Amino acid sequence: MGKVYVVGIGPGEYEQMTMRAANALNSCDVIVGYTVYVDLVKEHFAGKEFLTTPMKKEVDRCILAFEEAKKGKTVAMICSGDAGVYGMSGLMLEIGKDYPESEVEVIPGVTAAIGGAAVLGAPLIHDFALISLSDLLTPWEKIEKRLVLAAEADFVICLYNPSSKKRHDYLQKACDLMMQHKSPKTVCGTVLNIGREGETMTLMTLEELRDAKVDMFTTVFIGNSETKVVNGKMVTPRGYKNV
Amino acid sequence: MGKVYVVGIGPGEYEQMTMRAANALNSCDVIVGYTVYVDLVKEHFAGKEFLTTPMKKEVDRCILAFEEAKKGKTVAMICSGDAGVYGMSGLMLEIGKDYPESEVEVIPGVTAAIGGAAVLGAPLIHDFALISLSDLLTPWEKIEKRLVLAAEADFVICLYNPSSKKRHDYLQKACDLMMQHKSPKTVCGTVLNIGREGETMTLMTLEELRDAKVDMFTTVFIGNSETKVVNGKMVTPRGYKNV
Repeated sequence: MGKVYVVGIGPGEYEQMTMRAANALNSCDVIVGYTVYVDLVKEHFAGKEFLTTPMKKEVDRCILAFEEAKKGKTVAMICSGDAGVYGMSGLMLEIGKDYPESEVEVIPGVTAAIGGAAVLGAPLIHDFALISLSDLLTPWEKIEKRLVLAAEADFVICLYNPSSKKRHDYLQKACDLMMQHKSPKTVCGTVLNIGREGETMTLMTLEELRDAKVDMFTTVFIGNSETKVVNGKMVTPRGYKNV
Repeated sequence: MGKVYVVGIGPGEYEQMTMRAANALNSCDVIVGYTVYVDLVKEHFAGKEFLTTPMKKEVDRCILAFEEAKKGKTVAMICSGDAGVYGMSGLMLEIGKDYPESEVEVIPGVTAAIGGAAVLGAPLIHDFALISLSDLLTPWEKIEKRLVLAAEADFVICLYNPSSKKRHDYLQKACDLMMQHKSPKTVCGTVLNIGREGETMTLMTLEELRDAKVDMFTTVFIGNSETKVVNGKMVTPRGYKNV
């Protein structure tokens, strides 16, 4: 049974990957992933075998990876951003139970929250909460509860999956819920296409965010009560003794 | 005025750095940082000028970086993990106001939450909150409130700075607060020395965590209500439809 890596490739371009991730991809025989991510890395790992499955076929993709490893190949399953933040590492470890001889190594990467924060300035310097607005696998009531309590706790909040065709009004709902505890003037920011062509950052207030156009390639940041704009960047001070 | 990079070097060994971070360090004249982090990278960037300041001299360190840039040098300020998570990017952007000709670029890295999660398995697959237990710059009452509300929201919780000589009982206090809403049997994990020599992971329950020995090199993970142990790894399922 060959070794199985689960690799976070970072938020965009090749050089946003860690050297450890690149080394794992160089050492493997097969690279498995969602079509879009495989296309992102293909040119940098010539000579590898590439296997893809479409979106929503995550279980099939994991089985595919382990079946290749069973043939004695070293396999890398790639994920955008980090493998462990809404990524494939959990499912791989669960499905790995059916392949008891398999050795699975998770290689971390820069997730969109971290990559997007660097584009906006320094919004995540202090305690923060990360929430996905996708209710595909989570009941919306649970998401609502997290939004309200995270706002009450004055966390900086980063939102993944803020919108999709079916969920066009979810960000609006989320902003209304957060405004139960956060000021409408709270500093917010969005980053589109982090680390790749078309990267765009925008600063706004929470009440403006409510009506902002976002899509599935946008990561959203809502400041805490101390977050401010410094020279056109979104900055959360580290604490009350800060300059 | 030379360019100023603020660079997250990842959680430990050199290869945990992104290629973008390594490229920035290769391109600069001066590397500035806390002594311990400079020692971590020194051997890989021979021929650079290295400038260090001790812990708690963060403001001096930022001024030092900008003063070097003022001489026309390209400067990199390095941070352990990510530059934007309890890192130096915020302070650099604030102090950068005094150097209006400066161009500051933040380069993200793998923070301890992401790096430690990969060691434990997949604890952060779903919504999570990151909280520092250090009350050096934050009132303890605010930290308490965040712990209780994050537990009530059923977030996976990652704790930074769980202990120090002066704060030996803070983790105990934090566990008691989280147990107002989380079961004492909640799956938890700790990782010591992420990505470097002596890396050690340990799984336990929340009530066991309460009395665990941790230090300032430990990152702590508290699962949500669905987090489980899979083949000796800590795994949070992605959602209710998961296998």
